[in-house]
Amino acid sequence: MLILLTNDDGIRAPGLVAMYRQLTRLGEVHVVAPATVQSATGHGITMSAPLMTARVEVDGAFTGTSVDGRPADCVKLAVARILPRRPDLVVSGINSGANVGINVIYSGTVAAAIEAAFLGLPAVAVSLYLRKQIEPDYHQAAKYALGTINQCISSGLRGGQVATINLPVLQPDQEPKGIKVVRQCTRAWPDAYESRKDPRGREYFWNTGIFTLENAADDTDVAALRDGYITVTPLQFDLTHESMLRDWAGRDWSLGQ
Amino acid sequence: MLILLTNDDGIRAPGLVAMYRQLTRLGEVHVVAPATVQSATGHGITMSAPLMTARVEVDGAFTGTSVDGRPADCVKLAVARILPRRPDLVVSGINSGANVGINVIYSGTVAAAIEAAFLGLPAVAVSLYLRKQIEPDYHQAAKYALGTINQCISSGLRGGQVATINLPVLQPDQEPKGIKVVRQCTRAWPDAYESRKDPRGREYFWNTGIFTLENAADDTDVAALRDGYITVTPLQFDLTHESMLRDWAGRDWSLGQ
Repeated sequence: MLILLTNDDGIRAPGLVAMYRQLTRLGEVHVVAPATVQSATGHGITMSAPLMTARVEVDGAFTGTSVDGRPADCVKLAVARILPRRPDLVVSGINSGANVGINVIYSGTVAAAIEAAFLGLPAVAVSLYLRKQIEPDYHQAAKYALGTINQCISSGLRGGQVATINLPVLQPDQEPKGIKVVRQCTRAWPDAYESRKDPRGREYFWNTGIFTLENAADDTDVAALRDGYITVTPLQFDLTHESMLRDWAGRDWSLGQ
Repeated sequence: MLILLTNDDGIRAPGLVAMYRQLTRLGEVHVVAPATVQSATGHGITMSAPLMTARVEVDGAFTGTSVDGRPADCVKLAVARILPRRPDLVVSGINSGANVGINVIYSGTVAAAIEAAFLGLPAVAVSLYLRKQIEPDYHQAAKYALGTINQCISSGLRGGQVATINLPVLQPDQEPKGIKVVRQCTRAWPDAYESRKDPRGREYFWNTGIFTLENAADDTDVAALRDGYITVTPLQFDLTHESMLRDWAGRDWSLGQ
């Protein structure tokens, strides 16, 4: 099994290294990942700048290819030019921070997995919920991630399909309450901006909004992760709103200016 | 009617200026848009850097607020801090270039509109298909865009809903064939990369893939735009894959590592 591993936190991120070590139990793992942190870059691609690449050795664990670009660039370039053949699985992560709720749409980690599905490959994004008081254990998280990925595969994950996995934050003696397959929560999180003046009097703003799992709809990824479960959410990349489409397509539209 | 106008090509883009002039027929238009071009940035937001703002006067048409950030940042900041009250409508565009097919997911123009829908507002993204041989007429395009936006509103576009409009490229004596409400095409576009060596021998790649409307599934945005129609696609931001969710949620999942 040939596996492409990428992320959006950069090729040296501890979550990627931990995931690499576990994925070698499944097959041959090739790492093609951003040279630098690309968090919350969303699903961007690089068209108007060249993509610099380098072979880098990370932590004595692997030698991979760093790309001076976005997560989706890494997947496209890896599949088109870098890997010896089309991969059997694409894994993105482990991201430092949960990608649940509307963060699914902001997430570069998820964007890489969706890009792989565009290309007809089976893909999984993996993210770890972080809390300030608890030191993240990526080694332990990667073990649970591998177990969950294995079950996605045995549940029939196939080319063009993509799932996103979120892992709960755990105290050293804790384990997750289980695995829940749940839908994406679509509630907005509260926006807040702090205004400041620069030394020349120009106004600027810091985003001070805090993403919280407290504002969750029942039976969603946000609620299940908050309650200590590993969450699995199968994703689509057809953004068509079906009921609005049916309604609007039945109306008369004219070229009035 | 209070309208927020933004885009991803930057506050001085001709498509935004043309859209501004038409939207003043509908109500009071406030422009909050990126200071610089943000094309294909996807749905990113800025958390770890401040958002510089400036009041800028553009083309004698309007004075607006430029934000040194992404399209979604502009919407969030405008609604939270800059506008006098919550807008009645958010318009993003006119983008220079079509946002159909999987480009919907890459698009900063669409991301701004989806962000507005997150926040419970009615929102529309507008994009103009460009071809090398034909000089774009943003003034004419904005007239058709306004007519189409008016019909989205009369079709019941409400808070939390978002539609994306694409305008065909037109010769000076042409008009669109009509307006079609169509779904998003999900076909991948062909990837190609050209490899080069920098003066120090390091390898880099240029993305040479060309987005074409030729590879379209029937009854989709890509096909209708290629055929000369204005396209309207209602969008959702719940990425849950419903049939996979039903299948996978019915299975047994265990915490095996």
